[in-house]
Amino acid sequence: MKELTLQVEGMSCNHCVAAIEKALMKLDAEGKVDLASKKVDVRYDEAKTSVEEIKEAIEDQGYDVQ
Amino acid sequence: MKELTLQVEGMSCNHCVAAIEKALMKLDAEGKVDLASKKVDVRYDEAKTSVEEIKEAIEDQGYDVQ
Repeated sequence: MKELTLQVEGMSCNHCVAAIEKALMKLDAEGKVDLASKKVDVRYDEAKTSVEEIKEAIEDQGYDVQ
Repeated sequence: MKELTLQVEGMSCNHCVAAIEKALMKLDAEGKVDLASKKVDVRYDEAKTSVEEIKEAIEDQGYDVQ
């Protein structure tokens, strides 16, 4: 398992948290969103996904990954 | 059909809009949320629901009706 912290703009409420966590789950990754710091901690398996796919999954939900 | 405009605090994104509109739909009411002005316009049938039920449905989603 690898870990990664992303800075993400546009997350405003618990619905946003759920949307991002669900999108990461589809990549078999685990996300922990902190709204206050606008950070998403991600644990993922390099054999199953990549940083690029993770960023894309979050952007597809309508957020900007910095 | 009656119409009503509510001032609602805590709505921050399109997920919030969807959550409120869906909650109102369950009362056979129609909601139009404007995030910028924090207003929800509601069209409802007095025979099916009431102002109290409408306010409660919105509050149950985690928002404050003023």
